[in-house]
Amino acid sequence: MDLKTEALNMHKEHQGKLEIKSKVKVENQHDLSLAYTPGVAYACKEIQANPDDAYIYTSKANMVAVITDGSAVLGLGNIGPHAAIPVMEGKSILMKELAGVDSIPICLATQDVEEIIKTCKYLEPTLGAINLEDISAPRCVTIERRLIKEMNIPVFHDDQHGTSIIVAAAFLNVERLTTRSLKDMTVVMSGTGAAGSMIAKMLKKIGVGKIYAYDITGVIDVKKHDTYNFLIKELLDEGTYDTPKEHDGTLASIMKNADAFIGVSAPNLVSKDMIKSMNKNPIVFAMANPTPEISYDDAKEAGAYICGSGRSDYPNQINNVLAFPGLFKGALSVRASKINEEMKLAAAKAIAYIISDDELKEDYIVPGPFDKRVVEAVSKAVGEAAIKTGVSKLYK
Amino acid sequence: MDLKTEALNMHKEHQGKLEIKSKVKVENQHDLSLAYTPGVAYACKEIQANPDDAYIYTSKANMVAVITDGSAVLGLGNIGPHAAIPVMEGKSILMKELAGVDSIPICLATQDVEEIIKTCKYLEPTLGAINLEDISAPRCVTIERRLIKEMNIPVFHDDQHGTSIIVAAAFLNVERLTTRSLKDMTVVMSGTGAAGSMIAKMLKKIGVGKIYAYDITGVIDVKKHDTYNFLIKELLDEGTYDTPKEHDGTLASIMKNADAFIGVSAPNLVSKDMIKSMNKNPIVFAMANPTPEISYDDAKEAGAYICGSGRSDYPNQINNVLAFPGLFKGALSVRASKINEEMKLAAAKAIAYIISDDELKEDYIVPGPFDKRVVEAVSKAVGEAAIKTGVSKLYK
Repeated sequence: MDLKTEALNMHKEHQGKLEIKSKVKVENQHDLSLAYTPGVAYACKEIQANPDDAYIYTSKANMVAVITDGSAVLGLGNIGPHAAIPVMEGKSILMKELAGVDSIPICLATQDVEEIIKTCKYLEPTLGAINLEDISAPRCVTIERRLIKEMNIPVFHDDQHGTSIIVAAAFLNVERLTTRSLKDMTVVMSGTGAAGSMIAKMLKKIGVGKIYAYDITGVIDVKKHDTYNFLIKELLDEGTYDTPKEHDGTLASIMKNADAFIGVSAPNLVSKDMIKSMNKNPIVFAMANPTPEISYDDAKEAGAYICGSGRSDYPNQINNVLAFPGLFKGALSVRASKINEEMKLAAAKAIAYIISDDELKEDYIVPGPFDKRVVEAVSKAVGEAAIKTGVSKLYK
Repeated sequence: MDLKTEALNMHKEHQGKLEIKSKVKVENQHDLSLAYTPGVAYACKEIQANPDDAYIYTSKANMVAVITDGSAVLGLGNIGPHAAIPVMEGKSILMKELAGVDSIPICLATQDVEEIIKTCKYLEPTLGAINLEDISAPRCVTIERRLIKEMNIPVFHDDQHGTSIIVAAAFLNVERLTTRSLKDMTVVMSGTGAAGSMIAKMLKKIGVGKIYAYDITGVIDVKKHDTYNFLIKELLDEGTYDTPKEHDGTLASIMKNADAFIGVSAPNLVSKDMIKSMNKNPIVFAMANPTPEISYDDAKEAGAYICGSGRSDYPNQINNVLAFPGLFKGALSVRASKINEEMKLAAAKAIAYIISDDELKEDYIVPGPFDKRVVEAVSKAVGEAAIKTGVSKLYK
């Protein structure tokens, strides 16, 4: 059976991928008097007196909503909220199966930024955290930033930060494996959307020297500052993006003598010659999905030393599944009010150091998505970072 | 252990009452490729081409949201959305345990009618139906009516219709048991809120002759029409409420010679003398909770023939749990676009006729909340009524 038939059958057979279960039994009048009236009123009154007791007497403490507007789903684009449901359900069950975190998919029938922000805020009472998903850039950045500021629970846009955490983990391991110092590296970023921007920020944070960026408008250059959206402007202003001294606007012109290429952009943008023009033993993460900027085989043939991709059928898959389950588990475990930079960095380091010095090699710089050690290590590190930075509401 | 301690311990031990479960396993790369990328994209594309396929490939078909703003929770009043969570979780697990319907609690951090309406509409894509709960009257009526008109899935406010369906079932059985004709009966309604109004409408629909209403403003009288809210005006205009020929504004004055009293109002409004002033063998449903308008024992002593209450420790408990699980199961089973009057009536009749002629007696005119026959009978009757009235999207 081909994948399409098998996937459709599976979704059809189970009529979706998730269900709600009761954690308590309701079989007789006494059960009913505890779980519902009149007993339930005692829990209500405790929470009325102290709203934070919702974390004690309800499912809030372990409940994440996966929220989308269906505007940028996988590689499928703006397919709308109904068609986005299978992806959000997938995310929800991964959260549960990998990290034990309860999660409900919410696909909103609006793509208005202010309405999405307001709706998320209205949904706060029953939620422990929000995972924003598949919202188009740069709207997703606006929405996430506003919600982080205006809500009392963690809000995390996985498309922005999930990939950036795994790429950062990979680069930490590149440094371990090669003893090539990150601060001496020049990285070329292809793609300045949600994922690309946050990867760049994260790489700068772990010490990468220079980052040149490229997108559909050409090479990002401070001279064209006025023409960019707020996100590119911000990355130029804060020094995340560097403007190459010499370039002719093409991707090829900035890849010359670069140490690493990271693509979250479009298929087949990179040729073997472009890889050959890079510094010796280049690092190539071509993550456009399903067709990358350059194939693993072509990159390797052209001399790439370490390659990563978004695909499970090649080494070093940059898979968000490594980050978000443990990240949410960790944030929820200490009742964090937000997921801050330190917590994301802690996640990246935890993922990197799953792999011991002995195990580390060029086709194994990130753990596999089903490595049981990952969730525990990430959630522990994230929880500790939350406490250390004072955002835990449970441990102060 | 007292009920308070036991109820609080139970909620605390399980940290709330519900969890999310995956219906499919995700243990290896192949599972992941079916439930998530890349396989999930095939389900997305099917739904993109035909949004109704969300009923086939996602959990939508069996998913109900229990939505409140926390403005009128149980007998606790406007305790807000956080304190309301335990009740909504209770409702959700009852939906699952009794009828196999998946259900998520949503407690909104707004009490603005228009914002609630908008938010419910934004939430539609992942939902098969909405159960509105514990929203204060008459706002709840406005919200429900607007949503029924503006949404494509069933919207049902349980506080309005749940009780009315059970009371109608009880009165159908009063008629069976006593051969007293409903059309010759005069019923006194105490309480003109959401529940009282819809009970009155439903009783009129099954044939009750006269209904006099009473609330905190006194006896409802067409002469004071201008002073009432839109709901009381509507019930007067459509002839649901009758104005008693003679009354002095007191409840006592309209109970004289009435055949039945129904209270969804306040404690201790009714005396034994008032019961004695009613027609012979009166019917008394005193449902104020936890303290009724008159106690079961007092009503009986004063000559009441059939008594019902909201309490589980007396006969004939009018418990919403008899209606909503089967009602939603039935509506979802035929993919109904709404829950209409015919479906509610069908539910009332199904509940009444669970009890055979032989079983029927004055302290057994409604089935118990754990009678296994109820959900199946209600859902079957509701599904058939939906098909018959043309609101099933599955069977036309």
